[in-house]
Amino acid sequence: MSTVMNESPATEMKDRSAYSPGLEGVIAGESALCLVDEGEAGLLYRGYPIRELAEHSAFEEVAYLLLFAHLPNRQELANFSAQLIDRAVLPRLLEVFLGAVPSDAHPMDIVRSGVSLLGVVDSDTADNSHEANVYRSIGLLAQIPLMIAASYRLVTGKPRRRPHDDLTFAENLLYLLTDRREDDQAKAMARVLDVSLTLYAEHEFNASTFAARVTASTMTDLYSAITSAIGALKGPLHGGANEAVAEMFLDIGSRERAETWVREALVKKHRIMGFGHRVLKKGDARSIIIQRHAESLSRICGDHRWYEIATTVNRVMEQEKGLHPNLDFYTAVAYLLMGIPRELYTPLFVCSRITGWCAHVIEQQDHNRLMRPRALYTGPSRRDYVPLDHRS
Amino acid sequence: MSTVMNESPATEMKDRSAYSPGLEGVIAGESALCLVDEGEAGLLYRGYPIRELAEHSAFEEVAYLLLFAHLPNRQELANFSAQLIDRAVLPRLLEVFLGAVPSDAHPMDIVRSGVSLLGVVDSDTADNSHEANVYRSIGLLAQIPLMIAASYRLVTGKPRRRPHDDLTFAENLLYLLTDRREDDQAKAMARVLDVSLTLYAEHEFNASTFAARVTASTMTDLYSAITSAIGALKGPLHGGANEAVAEMFLDIGSRERAETWVREALVKKHRIMGFGHRVLKKGDARSIIIQRHAESLSRICGDHRWYEIATTVNRVMEQEKGLHPNLDFYTAVAYLLMGIPRELYTPLFVCSRITGWCAHVIEQQDHNRLMRPRALYTGPSRRDYVPLDHRS
Repeated sequence: MSTVMNESPATEMKDRSAYSPGLEGVIAGESALCLVDEGEAGLLYRGYPIRELAEHSAFEEVAYLLLFAHLPNRQELANFSAQLIDRAVLPRLLEVFLGAVPSDAHPMDIVRSGVSLLGVVDSDTADNSHEANVYRSIGLLAQIPLMIAASYRLVTGKPRRRPHDDLTFAENLLYLLTDRREDDQAKAMARVLDVSLTLYAEHEFNASTFAARVTASTMTDLYSAITSAIGALKGPLHGGANEAVAEMFLDIGSRERAETWVREALVKKHRIMGFGHRVLKKGDARSIIIQRHAESLSRICGDHRWYEIATTVNRVMEQEKGLHPNLDFYTAVAYLLMGIPRELYTPLFVCSRITGWCAHVIEQQDHNRLMRPRALYTGPSRRDYVPLDHRS
Repeated sequence: MSTVMNESPATEMKDRSAYSPGLEGVIAGESALCLVDEGEAGLLYRGYPIRELAEHSAFEEVAYLLLFAHLPNRQELANFSAQLIDRAVLPRLLEVFLGAVPSDAHPMDIVRSGVSLLGVVDSDTADNSHEANVYRSIGLLAQIPLMIAASYRLVTGKPRRRPHDDLTFAENLLYLLTDRREDDQAKAMARVLDVSLTLYAEHEFNASTFAARVTASTMTDLYSAITSAIGALKGPLHGGANEAVAEMFLDIGSRERAETWVREALVKKHRIMGFGHRVLKKGDARSIIIQRHAESLSRICGDHRWYEIATTVNRVMEQEKGLHPNLDFYTAVAYLLMGIPRELYTPLFVCSRITGWCAHVIEQQDHNRLMRPRALYTGPSRRDYVPLDHRS
């Protein structure tokens, strides 16, 4: 179809034989934020094992850790939590937008546009100092849940809620999306939601984070970089996975059907969602953590259906394909139990990953180098120009 | 400040010693769109030398070439031009947005948000087939000039214009932004604007295009990918350069001051904008083309001031630093002569580069592989978790 040119560009390039499609295994920059380790530790956020953070810290502490590079003490955490409540307000331009948005709009399109509009009304985006961007990051963490809740409530017609200052971030998020907060089940749900937020917060140079860093590398503003990340996360090869897992569970419908369903899907070579990972070939330490919480929440809710479907699919996939579930798999069980609408799963991912994205953008701009790689040319050799009237 | 961990992640990575900051020289993917060649040809779009395209083709033909991989014949060009007129309409959500946007908003924030909002109202973004994305690309090419013109006219209070079907794309663009179209000067300006659009249309894996491709690699929608690109282009290390050059010319003010101004700036080690390029170390073939047009437009307009300032700065920079001007340098002269407001220079870049971006997004998704590189970890070694009440 096309020939590779013989003339090589004058600028020096790395060895073409070393070209790695999708940049697989290629180091694209430096980061102190997270270490993806397939060993016992699993994943470290700024040096702390993910398991410890998920079990012992609220998501707010993890967000603080990612943005400020240390775990907050009581006073720092109280201040940070208070800021998240205070700044949970949307500017007028956002309200105008939410008032005009069609009810069938994709929630990720709404969040992407909402963050872009926050950039419009920030009157000082030329200042991308470390401090200014940390300030903006806290604002985004506070405001994104409101956008998601507002877009959902515009569709359902339910009245909008304000976060309460006596609730945690996860409790408020559950309340904004489901109206639940007081009962014991809601407390248990918020705890599992909190764990899932911690697990989703950061994962090195995944595609959305990398998109944010490439964008940030022109020294553009934080909103532009985060808008890139949200747009990337929307893709079915990235953030769309937990929603797709939930769809699979709903399609399977009952534990009894699960084994037959998976085996038939494997025979038909359909892709089973929620398994495997570009980087984590030997399993995802986060999956084990969320699985345990999904099981316990099933017990508290007295609804074992989704968990049993999930473990059956998990067993068959390990037997037949040797594949391990990734974070999205049992998270879908937990979110189904919480009654969160499926189209909000990826936006929920945004509520969490916004912390990692912002920390990466700040890190990129603190030690910036423009990201400008090269392409392997696969187009036609030099062609002679044909004037308009001589073209066939 | 931080130590590199000794434990190496289990997943295989490329040799760390080969890590290239900013991905300089690293091949990040394949593309048939353009060959950046520092030799005689300069730059080829799908095999055609940029010089021939700039001199003999209207920008519409170049846009068609990038999107359809061949130069259009008369009939194809007529159809394409007619589509660009027909589709030059903004949906209601965009009008609501433009009606509510603050008058001091950054035009690039408006264009980024505008494209994101087009994604909100496209009811079928899950279809990212080649054909659907070509169709969307033509829409963006038609609609982006309207956003820029509308945002400008909201500030100036001038009435908005509609493109005319007897004008070229560049003539319409000039008309939308300056009200000029009939007189001979306007015809000459539109011709130079047309050349600049052709020269800005495509440049391989520059940062904004690369941001678009990374975003597109999750198989998200075209609008998300283009939103990333616009956000990246906004950065002062990328699209902001021609505006910065114009600011420098305005600051210099007269030919007599130019030499002293540059020499003083060099002594003070200030950065002189419009020189050098990550990839083009030996000069930019596009600069020679736009320089000739800037000179001729100066003659037609009877205003040699900007061109003379520019040639003086150019001479001193070559003498003192051995640096050659890039495309942004003489483009600023041309745009100053056209009387286009400076804050619209980068949005004008969007009007052109949207063609290359869209062609890259389509190419990426036609042969997709998720972009997921790795990071070189520079953070702390594993740290012991400290419970909240024990933190200092």
